[in-house]
Amino acid sequence: VIVSRLPRVGHAAREIAVPLFILFLWDVVVTLAYLRFTPSMETVELPTSLFGTALALFIGFAVNASYARWWEARSLWGQMINASRSIARQAVTLCRVDEAASRPDLARDIVYAQIAYVNVLRTTLRGQPTDAEAARLPVAMAEELASKINKPNAIVTDIGLLAAEAAHLGLLDTFAQVRIETTLVDIANAQGGMERIKNTPLPSQYRFFPSFFAKLFCVILPFAVVPKLGAYTPLGSALVGLMFLMAVQIGRDLMDPFANDIYDVPMSAMCRTIEIDLLQTIGEPAPEKMQPVDGVLW
Amino acid sequence: VIVSRLPRVGHAAREIAVPLFILFLWDVVVTLAYLRFTPSMETVELPTSLFGTALALFIGFAVNASYARWWEARSLWGQMINASRSIARQAVTLCRVDEAASRPDLARDIVYAQIAYVNVLRTTLRGQPTDAEAARLPVAMAEELASKINKPNAIVTDIGLLAAEAAHLGLLDTFAQVRIETTLVDIANAQGGMERIKNTPLPSQYRFFPSFFAKLFCVILPFAVVPKLGAYTPLGSALVGLMFLMAVQIGRDLMDPFANDIYDVPMSAMCRTIEIDLLQTIGEPAPEKMQPVDGVLW
Amino acid sequence: VIVSRLPRVGHAAREIAVPLFILFLWDVVVTLAYLRFTPSMETVELPTSLFGTALALFIGFAVNASYARWWEARSLWGQMINASRSIARQAVTLCRVDEAASRPDLARDIVYAQIAYVNVLRTTLRGQPTDAEAARLPVAMAEELASKINKPNAIVTDIGLLAAEAAHLGLLDTFAQVRIETTLVDIANAQGGMERIKNTPLPSQYRFFPSFFAKLFCVILPFAVVPKLGAYTPLGSALVGLMFLMAVQIGRDLMDPFANDIYDVPMSAMCRTIEIDLLQTIGEPAPEKMQPVDGVLW
Amino acid sequence: VIVSRLPRVGHAAREIAVPLFILFLWDVVVTLAYLRFTPSMETVELPTSLFGTALALFIGFAVNASYARWWEARSLWGQMINASRSIARQAVTLCRVDEAASRPDLARDIVYAQIAYVNVLRTTLRGQPTDAEAARLPVAMAEELASKINKPNAIVTDIGLLAAEAAHLGLLDTFAQVRIETTLVDIANAQGGMERIKNTPLPSQYRFFPSFFAKLFCVILPFAVVPKLGAYTPLGSALVGLMFLMAVQIGRDLMDPFANDIYDVPMSAMCRTIEIDLLQTIGEPAPEKMQPVDGVLW
Amino acid sequence: VIVSRLPRVGHAAREIAVPLFILFLWDVVVTLAYLRFTPSMETVELPTSLFGTALALFIGFAVNASYARWWEARSLWGQMINASRSIARQAVTLCRVDEAASRPDLARDIVYAQIAYVNVLRTTLRGQPTDAEAARLPVAMAEELASKINKPNAIVTDIGLLAAEAAHLGLLDTFAQVRIETTLVDIANAQGGMERIKNTPLPSQYRFFPSFFAKLFCVILPFAVVPKLGAYTPLGSALVGLMFLMAVQIGRDLMDPFANDIYDVPMSAMCRTIEIDLLQTIGEPAPEKMQPVDGVLW
Repeated sequence: VIVSRLPRVGHAAREIAVPLFILFLWDVVVTLAYLRFTPSMETVELPTSLFGTALALFIGFAVNASYARWWEARSLWGQMINASRSIARQAVTLCRVDEAASRPDLARDIVYAQIAYVNVLRTTLRGQPTDAEAARLPVAMAEELASKINKPNAIVTDIGLLAAEAAHLGLLDTFAQVRIETTLVDIANAQGGMERIKNTPLPSQYRFFPSFFAKLFCVILPFAVVPKLGAYTPLGSALVGLMFLMAVQIGRDLMDPFANDIYDVPMSAMCRTIEIDLLQTIGEPAPEKMQPVDGVLW
Repeated sequence: VIVSRLPRVGHAAREIAVPLFILFLWDVVVTLAYLRFTPSMETVELPTSLFGTALALFIGFAVNASYARWWEARSLWGQMINASRSIARQAVTLCRVDEAASRPDLARDIVYAQIAYVNVLRTTLRGQPTDAEAARLPVAMAEELASKINKPNAIVTDIGLLAAEAAHLGLLDTFAQVRIETTLVDIANAQGGMERIKNTPLPSQYRFFPSFFAKLFCVILPFAVVPKLGAYTPLGSALVGLMFLMAVQIGRDLMDPFANDIYDVPMSAMCRTIEIDLLQTIGEPAPEKMQPVDGVLW
Repeated sequence: VIVSRLPRVGHAAREIAVPLFILFLWDVVVTLAYLRFTPSMETVELPTSLFGTALALFIGFAVNASYARWWEARSLWGQMINASRSIARQAVTLCRVDEAASRPDLARDIVYAQIAYVNVLRTTLRGQPTDAEAARLPVAMAEELASKINKPNAIVTDIGLLAAEAAHLGLLDTFAQVRIETTLVDIANAQGGMERIKNTPLPSQYRFFPSFFAKLFCVILPFAVVPKLGAYTPLGSALVGLMFLMAVQIGRDLMDPFANDIYDVPMSAMCRTIEIDLLQTIGEPAPEKMQPVDGVLW
Repeated sequence: VIVSRLPRVGHAAREIAVPLFILFLWDVVVTLAYLRFTPSMETVELPTSLFGTALALFIGFAVNASYARWWEARSLWGQMINASRSIARQAVTLCRVDEAASRPDLARDIVYAQIAYVNVLRTTLRGQPTDAEAARLPVAMAEELASKINKPNAIVTDIGLLAAEAAHLGLLDTFAQVRIETTLVDIANAQGGMERIKNTPLPSQYRFFPSFFAKLFCVILPFAVVPKLGAYTPLGSALVGLMFLMAVQIGRDLMDPFANDIYDVPMSAMCRTIEIDLLQTIGEPAPEKMQPVDGVLW
Repeated sequence: VIVSRLPRVGHAAREIAVPLFILFLWDVVVTLAYLRFTPSMETVELPTSLFGTALALFIGFAVNASYARWWEARSLWGQMINASRSIARQAVTLCRVDEAASRPDLARDIVYAQIAYVNVLRTTLRGQPTDAEAARLPVAMAEELASKINKPNAIVTDIGLLAAEAAHLGLLDTFAQVRIETTLVDIANAQGGMERIKNTPLPSQYRFFPSFFAKLFCVILPFAVVPKLGAYTPLGSALVGLMFLMAVQIGRDLMDPFANDIYDVPMSAMCRTIEIDLLQTIGEPAPEKMQPVDGVLW
C-alpha cells in the first residue's frame, strides 16, 4: 500500500496517461473539424447529462464494491494479527508450566508454526513460492507440507495437533485445548475470507463496463461541448474525461487487494508485525519492523 | 462464475441483443418519421431528465440488492468451506487416538460425511438429483436419507450422532463433543442462509419494474432527442438505451446466485476444494482442482 | 410473499390505480386549460428538476430503509429455522440415550415444544389467536401459557426447564445443558429482533412525506411540462408520475414485513419447514410442504 | 417514539413553521422587488442546480447517519430485552433447585436486580434522577449504589456477585456461572453501545451545515426562480424550500435517540416490557403494558 | 472531539479561509476581466453540471469512507470500555475469595494492569511517550515492558499470565480462566482494529483527488457563471465553492480519528471513564471525570 500522503502522481499518471493523451488528440481533432465545418454540425446536441447519469451509476457500483473488497481484505488481515497474538498468548498462559518437563518447548513450537503459517499464507495469496517460509517449520512438518495442496490449511491442522499433543501429555486440559481450537477457528475463518476475495474477482460486468462506457463517453464528449466551448473544447472535455477515467481507475486499483501490486494490502509488513509480537510474547529477540520502499509498504 | 477477465461479450450480447435491435429499429422509424414530418413535432420536448432520475433510482435499488445477494451467497459458501475444514481438524485433533481401538475410523467417517454433505447441499440448491452424492455416505445413512425431505439437514444430524457415538465410546469428552456441535451450528447457519437466498427471490417489484421502465424509457427516448440529434438519433438513443439496459442486466445476472447458470456462485469448484482439503487433513489422496470450462467455473 | 416471477400487476394496479387515475384527469384538465388560455401561462417554468432531486432523496431514504427491514425480518426467520434445527439436533445428540429409561421422551418433548413455539410466535406477530398452536404443547404447559403476556418467551423458558430436568435426571451434564441454553439465547435474540421490527414502525416522517411529496409533485408536474409537451402532456406527465408513485409504493409494500398481507415474510411456510425438519430429526412422520395460494406463499 | 401512522403534523409544523414563514415573507419581498424593478435583474441566473446537488450531498450524509444512529439505539435496547430475558431464564434453569434450601430466593434476587438495572440505565440515559428506580434493589445494594459514578455498571457487577454467591453455595457449578457471566458481557456490551451513542453526538459539521446551507439555499432560491415564475414565485420557492427544510428536520429528529423528546426510542415502554416478562418468568404478578400518551410511546 | 453543539466556526474558518479567500480573489479577477472584455468570451459555456456530477461522486466516496472510519474507531473504543468493565467484573466474581489468602490482591492487580493497558494504548496511538502510563504497572512488569515493541500487546499477555497464576494457585478453575482469556481476545480484537485504522490511511486517491478536483472546480466555476451572473459572480461562485470545499473538509476532519487533533475520538476521556469504573468495581476511590477544554474533549 502507498503510505505517502500524496498519491503517487507519477504512477497514476502512467496508468491513465495513454488513454488521456489519445482522448486529448481526439478532442483536438473534433474541435478542428468543428471549427472548419461548423455549419453541418450546428444543430447537434447530445444527451450527455443522461449519459453522465448512467455512467455515474456504473462507476458508483464498481468503486463502492472495490473499496469494500479492499477494506474487508485489510480487516481480515487485522483479524489474523489479532488471532495470532491470541494463540501465542494462549499457548503461554494456558499450558501448565510446572509439569512441562516432558515437552518444555511446546508453546514455542506453536508460536513458530503460527509465524510460518502467516508467511506461507501470504506467499500463497501472492502466488509466490512458499518453500522459504515453510522452512521455519520443524523439518518433519515442512516435508509433509510439500505434498499438500492447501498448504496454509495444513499448517493450521498441524497447530491443532500440537495442542492435541499437549493435551495428551497433560499440559492442557480439554477445556484449554478447546479454547485454542476456537482461536484456530478464527484463524481458519480469516484465511477463508482472504481466499474468497482472492478467488472471486469482482463480476466481470463490474470490471469491464465502467471502463468501457467511460471511454465511450470520452469519445462522444467533444461533440457535445464543442458547439458551446469552441476552441476551448480540448481543455474542458479532457478535464471532465480525466475525472471519470480517474474514478474508474480508483476502482481498478482497489478491486484486487492481493494482486501483488503497489495498491496491495501490505501483507509482508503485517507478517513481520506478527513475527515481532509473537517472538516477544515468548521472550525471544525480534527482527526490525518493515520499512516502506519508495513510499510503498509491501 | 465467469473467471475470464473480460466479460463474455458474446453471452451478454445475446441477452440484450434482441431488445437492443428492436430499440434500434424503433429509433430509425422515429427518426425517419421526424425528418419526414418535422413541423408537427417541432415543439415537443420530453421531461427525460426527470424520467432518467427516477429510472436511476429504480436501477440503483435493484443492482445494489442483487450484488448484495450474490456476495452474501459467496460468503456463505466461504463460511461452509471454513467450517468444513474446522470440523475435519476437530475430528482429527479432539478425538483421543490412544483409546481409538474400539472404533478407529470415526474421524474418517465424520470427514466423509461432511464431504457428502456439501455435495448434497450443492445439488439440492441447484435442483439436481442428489443420489450420486449421497452414495459417498455409509450405506445405512444413505438409505435412511432417501426418506428425508431436507436431505442436507439430515446429514448434519448424522454427523452429530457420529460425535455422540464417539462421546459414548469415551473417545471425546463432553466438552470436545460440544465444540464439534458448535461447528455444526456454524454449518447449519451457513446452510440456512443459502436456503434463505434460494427460497426468497428479490421482491417481484425489484425484478419487474427496473426492466419495464428501462424499456419504456427506450421507447420514449428517440422522441426526446430527435429534435436535437436529427439523423444521428438512432446512434445516440441506442447508446443511452444500451447503458440502461446493460445496468438492468447486471442486476438480473447477479440476483439469483444459485440458479445454475453461468453467473452462479461456483459451487462445484468449492465442493471440490472442500473434498481436497478434508481428504488431505486425514492423510488420504485427493482429486484434482476443478478447472473452468469455456471460461466458466461451475 | 409473492412467489411468481411477475409482480401481481392486478394487485399493484389496484393500489396505485386510484391516485393514477385522478392524476391523469388532473393532467387532462391542466392541458385543456393551457391549450385554451395559453398566453397567460406562457412564461411560467417551474423548478421541477430541483423538486425531483429533493423527491428522489426522500424516496431513496424510505425505500432503502424499508428493504433493509424486510430483508432483516426474513433473515431473522432464517436464524429461527437454523436455531430450531440445531436445538432438535442437540436434544437428540447430547442427551445420553443409554440412561434414558427414566424419561425416554425428553428429546421429543423439546422438539414438540420448539414446533409449538415458532407457531405461537408466528400467530402472535400476525395478531392472530394463538390457542390452536399452543395446543401442541403438553396440557400443563398450555394451561400455564394462558396467563402469560409474552407467550413465545414463556415457551422458551419452558424449553430451558425441560433441559434443566434432563440435567437433574443425569441425562445431560452441565456443559451440554449450557450448549442448549446457548441455542436458546440465539432463539431469544431472533424473537427479540422480530418484535423490534414489529413494534417499531419506520419513523412516521419516512412513512408520510415520500408519499405526500410524490403526490404534490404529480399535481405540479403538468404545469411544468405543458408548455413543452402541449397536447401530449397527460401522457408524459402520467408516466413520470407513475414511476415516482410506484417507487413510493415499493417502499410501502416492504416496510411492515409482519403485517399479514401479501408482501409479508412467508411465516406459515417457514413454520411448516421447521415442523417437517424437526419431526424428521426425531424420526417421526412429517406433513407436506406448504404451497402458494394464488401465487402467494403465506 | 410516535406510534400513530400519520406524523404529528402539528408538531412538525411548529418545528419548521417559523423558518418557513420567514422564507415565505422573503419570497414575497423578492418577488415584489422583481416585478417592480425587473430590468436591473433580468439577466441574472443562479447556478441553483449545482447548489442543489451539493446540498443534497450534505443532507444525504446527515439523514443517513442520523437514521443509522436511531436504529442502532433501538437495536441495542432490543438486545437488552433479549439479554434480560435470557438472564432470567438462566437464573431459573441453571440454579440447582433441589439444593436451594440455603438461599432459596437467589434466582428472584437476580431477576429483581436486572429489572432495577434497566430502569436505572434508562433514567441515567435521559438524565433523570435514578433513586426511585434503584429502590427496587435490596437495601444494601441500593445504599452502596449511591456512591457509584456509573450506577448501571455497578449493578451489573452486583448481579455477577449474586452468581458468584450461588456458585460458592454450590447452587451453580462454574460452567453455569460462566454462562451467566457471558450473558452479563452481552448486557455490558449493549449498555456500552448506548453510552457511545449518547456521549458521541453526530459530528458538529453534520449537525450544523445541512441546516445552514438549506437555509442559505432558501434565501437565494427566489432570485433564481423569479425570472421564470414571476408572481408564482412565493409558491414555487416555498415548496422546494419546504422539502429541503423537512429533509433536514428528519435528520435532526432522529440524530439523538436518547434525548428525552417525542422522537426518542421508547425506553420506558421497553423497561416495562422487560419487567413484565421477567416477573412472569419467575411466576410473579406483572404490571400492565405501557400505553401511548397522545400518540407518543415514551 | 468537539462537544459544543455549534461547530467551531473559527476553527473551520481557519482551515478553509485561505483557499476561500484565494477563490474569491480569483472570482473577482475573472468577473472584472469578463465585464471588461465581454465579447471575446460571450459564447463559452462550460459543462459544469457534468463536472459537478463527477465531483459529487468523488466527494461522496471520500466522506462516506471517512465517516465510517471515524465511527468504527469510536465503536472500537466503546468495545474496549465494555471489555475493560467485563474483565474487572470477572476478576472480582470468578476468583474464589475464600481461598484467596495466598495472593489476596490478584483481582486488584488485574484491574490496575487493565487501567495501565488502555492508557498505554492511547498514548501509543497518539504517538506520545508511554512511560508515565506504564508506571501504573508493578515495577517488574513496567521494566520488562521497556524492551517490547508493541507495548499494549505485551500488557495483555501479562494480564493473561496473572490469570494463569491465579489458576495455578487454585483461585480460578480452568473454565473461569478461559472465560477471562476470552475477554482478553475481545480486548486484543479491539486493539487490533484500532491499529488497523491507525496504520492504514484512507487510500491516497481518496485523500488527494476530492480536494484537488474541488479546487479545480472552483477555478473553473467563475468562467461558467459569469455570463449569467455578471457582477454578482464572486458571490454566487464563492458560495457554491464554499459548499464543495466544506464537504471535502468534513471528510478530511474525520478520516484520521487517532490523529491527535480536535476531531479525534476522545481517548483521554474514555481512558478516564475506564479508570473510574474499574476502580469503583474493586471499591477504591476514583478520580473525576474529564472535562472539555475550550469545548474540545480529548
